[in-house]
Amino acid sequence: MTVGILCTGTELTRGELVNTNATWLAEELTALGFEVGAVDCVDDDRDRIRRALVRLGNEHEVVLCTGGLGPTTDDLTTECVAELLGVPLVCDAASLEHIRTLLARFGRDMAPSNAKQADFTEGASIISNPRGTAPGFHVRIGRALSFFFPGVPHEMKAMFRDTALPLLAPLVQSRHHQLRLRCFGLPESEVNDRLRGVEAEFGVILGYRASFPEIEVKVLARDPSYDAATARVDAAARVVRERLGDAVFAEGTTTFAEALLTLLGERGATLALAESCTGGLVGDMLTRVPGASRTFLGGVVSYSNEAKTALLGVDAAAIATHGAVSETVARAMAEGARSRFGSTLALAVTGIAGPDGGTPEKPVGLVHFAVADARGTSAQHVVSGGTREQVRVRAAYLGLRFVRRILLNGHDAGVG
Amino acid sequence: MTVGILCTGTELTRGELVNTNATWLAEELTALGFEVGAVDCVDDDRDRIRRALVRLGNEHEVVLCTGGLGPTTDDLTTECVAELLGVPLVCDAASLEHIRTLLARFGRDMAPSNAKQADFTEGASIISNPRGTAPGFHVRIGRALSFFFPGVPHEMKAMFRDTALPLLAPLVQSRHHQLRLRCFGLPESEVNDRLRGVEAEFGVILGYRASFPEIEVKVLARDPSYDAATARVDAAARVVRERLGDAVFAEGTTTFAEALLTLLGERGATLALAESCTGGLVGDMLTRVPGASRTFLGGVVSYSNEAKTALLGVDAAAIATHGAVSETVARAMAEGARSRFGSTLALAVTGIAGPDGGTPEKPVGLVHFAVADARGTSAQHVVSGGTREQVRVRAAYLGLRFVRRILLNGHDAGVG
Repeated sequence: MTVGILCTGTELTRGELVNTNATWLAEELTALGFEVGAVDCVDDDRDRIRRALVRLGNEHEVVLCTGGLGPTTDDLTTECVAELLGVPLVCDAASLEHIRTLLARFGRDMAPSNAKQADFTEGASIISNPRGTAPGFHVRIGRALSFFFPGVPHEMKAMFRDTALPLLAPLVQSRHHQLRLRCFGLPESEVNDRLRGVEAEFGVILGYRASFPEIEVKVLARDPSYDAATARVDAAARVVRERLGDAVFAEGTTTFAEALLTLLGERGATLALAESCTGGLVGDMLTRVPGASRTFLGGVVSYSNEAKTALLGVDAAAIATHGAVSETVARAMAEGARSRFGSTLALAVTGIAGPDGGTPEKPVGLVHFAVADARGTSAQHVVSGGTREQVRVRAAYLGLRFVRRILLNGHDAGVG
Repeated sequence: MTVGILCTGTELTRGELVNTNATWLAEELTALGFEVGAVDCVDDDRDRIRRALVRLGNEHEVVLCTGGLGPTTDDLTTECVAELLGVPLVCDAASLEHIRTLLARFGRDMAPSNAKQADFTEGASIISNPRGTAPGFHVRIGRALSFFFPGVPHEMKAMFRDTALPLLAPLVQSRHHQLRLRCFGLPESEVNDRLRGVEAEFGVILGYRASFPEIEVKVLARDPSYDAATARVDAAARVVRERLGDAVFAEGTTTFAEALLTLLGERGATLALAESCTGGLVGDMLTRVPGASRTFLGGVVSYSNEAKTALLGVDAAAIATHGAVSETVARAMAEGARSRFGSTLALAVTGIAGPDGGTPEKPVGLVHFAVADARGTSAQHVVSGGTREQVRVRAAYLGLRFVRRILLNGHDAGVG
């Protein structure tokens, strides 16, 4: 039971508008248990609209179409459907009255262009639109039950939920269950290699999404029984977690920072920061999470050497001897932040984000980390590639992971 | 000369990811002078990928395809192209070496799944990808010159600009010129109203793109003569700038933070921060800009009251009397940051980002700002709506705009 989505509009094909309608519909249909096979956009061109409708109607059981129901001359969808079905347009009196009433509420008369919106292909079932002047309709095209909605997002969404959803839900035979495991710290190819064979063993589908620097592993099963689908997903997810180790930091929509804040909260621990090359990014990641103030006390962005000394008490001689990007300075920054904020733990990050400022000894991408707590201070460093933004984002993640590992395993554990 | 875009990936057809690649490509191609007729997505399904490529290759002169070039088993694009062209896959030694080198830089060996990324359809022209392990290629399918890029946005964009653009630009007859003016601080409807009549007066097309909290105004002209197109755009842009005032902060790809850093640099001024509700976001915005260290000295993220006192010298009694979110505390934070960092100017931001923590007197969305320099300290506050993230991002922009206005106009000027 596959679905095709068609969005019409030159604003989409010219890139003036991000197609969030398509994303919303695709997500709703996937959650219902449908497989969305195609999400197509065409511009306001009769030929292309007609061809796309015929094609999608032949390839899918359900088609959802948005846009092209408005009053202007580039709104062509209804006419195209009538042409390809070979039936006339007929005016729906109730829709005409609705449009007239709605316009009157705004003190406007009904123009011929508005009246056009009450014309539907003969035999179509009309979908009322309480929020706007463009009613929708559904009709069979090819083998597909085809729905037509206006492009205005809040109108389309309400009409989908009120009318299309009750008609579509009973069509889905199989139930599906999906779990999203969010990972950091392993390359995509390594994740893929480690999970080889899981699909066949558990009868699940694995999907991967890389969103730098994270990788999301989606574990999906379809089954006539929802419980059976869930059981297969859960069994597979256990193996995925075993094979990926602590690279899996959370499920679903939990962010990397949120997972760490939760862990800190469970331990009754607080965190402070001393950021250099990340420039506030780590603090930003943490404070995006509502309630971060319960465990995150604050930080110092010590972008200059003077600030490292004045605000964190880093010995100016140590900076002169070892450089601002060094293990010695990272340790002193973490210890300085911990004592000034009075936190359980403090993380320091100092590195060379580039594109300039690298040397043979200290190349762009070199980042030193230190985490201090009551038991002591641990340090590590990495050299990684990529753009300035990638170096900074990766450093922020590595820093937070370092805190997590110290919390979970203490200073003696390998933190690499 | 029409173009078809094809984006592959189950994450798109399942609605897990908004298809911003398609929007970006459509905008670039439209700006070049192409007509984009179709923007299609299919899931990771061999049949559907092949059929879409054949169809788009028959209907358009140019096809651009993103996604499916990664190392995992659901990356099928290259195989599909080979199948539909009836040619074998051959390994490209240079690409293999590039992948090996790139992986080695991260201390990794080349897995078989990575080596697969060096396989191309026989006869294809390879598009190198300096930023990642997935090279692209171009090849003729049907009547279309067809380009294949990885789905990772920054890799795709660089490859498009470096390789596809020089091949595509000569195919378009009419010349076009476009200027992008980036704005902050006016609602989209107000921008639209103020620019009424500009299109007709100058023979240009205005496009608007809202990307919270910014609005971009695109001024585009097409003409057989490039000089004529440029002259019309420049004349229209002057009027756009006049009508929008200081809401226009930059042209092209210059960020809001970058524009401010440039201004600071021109004045020989340095900046420090005291951030509360923005939690490091302002520092992050500034330090994303290469070379930020020349003018940005650092900041304190004083998320707790104790940190405001310990690190910025804010009087604990003032916090107790007025609350952490108050003009008094904002002023003290700015002055404390300025003296500790020794900067020309300091900005303080303290507010209630929500969703909790609001009261009738101090609702969620209330943010106090202060800017201190040698001439004194100015303060202002706003109450705005939206999500936690929107309140924080808007506060970061308003704070930076406040610094800019003090720099340009001094403390006496209206800064509202």
